[in-house]
Amino acid sequence: MKKLINDPADVVAEALRGMAIAHPELRVDHTHRIVYRGDAPVSGKVGLISGGGSGHEPLHGGFVGPGMLDAACAGEVFTSPVPDQMLEATRGVNGGAGVVHIVKNYTGDVMNFEMAAELAMAEDIPVESVIVDDDVAVQDSTFTAGRRGVGATVLVEKIAGAAADQGRPLADVADVARRVNAAARSMGVALTSCTVPAVGHPTFELSDSEMEVGIGIHGEPGRERMPIRPARDVAELICEPILADLDFAGPDGAILFVNGMGATPLLELYVMYAEVAAILEKSGVQIARSLVGPFITSLDMAGCSVTLLRADDDLLTLWDHPVNTPALRKGC
Amino acid sequence: MKKLINDPADVVAEALRGMAIAHPELRVDHTHRIVYRGDAPVSGKVGLISGGGSGHEPLHGGFVGPGMLDAACAGEVFTSPVPDQMLEATRGVNGGAGVVHIVKNYTGDVMNFEMAAELAMAEDIPVESVIVDDDVAVQDSTFTAGRRGVGATVLVEKIAGAAADQGRPLADVADVARRVNAAARSMGVALTSCTVPAVGHPTFELSDSEMEVGIGIHGEPGRERMPIRPARDVAELICEPILADLDFAGPDGAILFVNGMGATPLLELYVMYAEVAAILEKSGVQIARSLVGPFITSLDMAGCSVTLLRADDDLLTLWDHPVNTPALRKGC
Repeated sequence: MKKLINDPADVVAEALRGMAIAHPELRVDHTHRIVYRGDAPVSGKVGLISGGGSGHEPLHGGFVGPGMLDAACAGEVFTSPVPDQMLEATRGVNGGAGVVHIVKNYTGDVMNFEMAAELAMAEDIPVESVIVDDDVAVQDSTFTAGRRGVGATVLVEKIAGAAADQGRPLADVADVARRVNAAARSMGVALTSCTVPAVGHPTFELSDSEMEVGIGIHGEPGRERMPIRPARDVAELICEPILADLDFAGPDGAILFVNGMGATPLLELYVMYAEVAAILEKSGVQIARSLVGPFITSLDMAGCSVTLLRADDDLLTLWDHPVNTPALRKGC
Repeated sequence: MKKLINDPADVVAEALRGMAIAHPELRVDHTHRIVYRGDAPVSGKVGLISGGGSGHEPLHGGFVGPGMLDAACAGEVFTSPVPDQMLEATRGVNGGAGVVHIVKNYTGDVMNFEMAAELAMAEDIPVESVIVDDDVAVQDSTFTAGRRGVGATVLVEKIAGAAADQGRPLADVADVARRVNAAARSMGVALTSCTVPAVGHPTFELSDSEMEVGIGIHGEPGRERMPIRPARDVAELICEPILADLDFAGPDGAILFVNGMGATPLLELYVMYAEVAAILEKSGVQIARSLVGPFITSLDMAGCSVTLLRADDDLLTLWDHPVNTPALRKGC
């Protein structure tokens, strides 16, 4: 296993120590493994938290800051945080206007966030939970009932974060988050497996000439394993199910997010982006905004995913709202 | 070779096509393979250009925009752009105040930028060339006489870009760039080789248990090949030569840049950051600012590099200056 780590058991704690020093504008609760924006809770603002297994960085801790998340709970690698963390984060970001939980649709995350929401509401903190389930690859999967939550999570966090920053009330912020999820579709492809530090060997075997189409962000099986193809074919294989699942043509523009899985260089992501853009043009889908880079990763997996979000003017305006986090900055 | 590309010969052209669509605020000259900020030339402002072989993305094209570069010339992968490109870019960014060339110290780049500067000056465009040579690993290398230019390039482009944006004159902007280079030191480590698309196999062989300390960004040999060690030892191996080469203690703070080589996940970079920060604390070096992420990469190489810049108040103020590029954004 070739990794820049010390003891595999300490990876998450040590990375959080790095984050705390590198980003003094954040506050890290090392006991609960929560990354807060430094000024949390923001009085009168709806609080936004998310969290999940580590190994998907910059998701979620890299998206904490003004205009996006108020806090992120870090689980062990590919393992849900526990309800206690989520409850603590909910308390810590509640500025009196309630808290939105952004939850990727994996059984452990959903169950634990549900429990945390109940506990918080028992303390009179209003909570709205939003489930993200945008992956069109498979209906059920290793860790999921229903569709998996993947790339749309980044867009939900950005856009709902903007709505909260604008001072919208709890129900409206949750509604924005649900609208983003409902209008977003994703699919990914892996060229290599990832290796979980505590496991020490690749999660799955993939020969030197194969790729896995429809891969999950923990290495869950996708739709099909097949010989590697050129980028333009890969783009077709990813875009076809996305475009078949939701109508992206029409007057609303789309936000196109081409994501790197962790070990794929930006040069390749831009090649993929060009191929996806060409497909969208042929399909009558207008690209209104773009995001290209590794924003929801799977440790050291090589591959990429494409997320498409049908965005009306309200969502585009929220997308353009200033944000200031370690991984996404704009107009702040 | 597992890459999300089409024909290896088309990688750079296709990636530039992707960049042009994804970033409509930029202007891409596909004939000359130059990425310009959309409003270049900016009248009265010193123009800043850089360029080099592709494969180091986001360097340089991802750093084009207000507050940083005015244009970047893309060569083939790991191959210098030609003087014609550099001359064309120099003309295209000259707003009447002259142009700074930021040149990484590789023989091809230095020779071609020199020729371009002579041609531009023959057209009465004042040019100042700044050579970046911050890599303490080796004195001469595969493509270099003298030290190689690596991570400091990002810092030079950011800080000199700010100086130009503040309206400083040509000689001052060049002086700032040279001060950054003189006060910066870097070293890197590779856990795996990179694979050049047109070559199709790894640039060098490294066994499953080995790492290369002092690696160059094109896979040039470093100081020593040795068994992989924990992150804290790797941090020591990288930091010791940096700290031995320049005095970073004292009243000035330092900008600490922990860079990913392309295939190393952010989780590991933060683990490395924490280890480097601990060493700096013991050495009496005060971290004033930080940058963590893959900003000067080597295709799909796994590994990281550390760059340390001794920064006085002037340099820190310039570092904090607003910037708006695809890969670096702040306060814009």
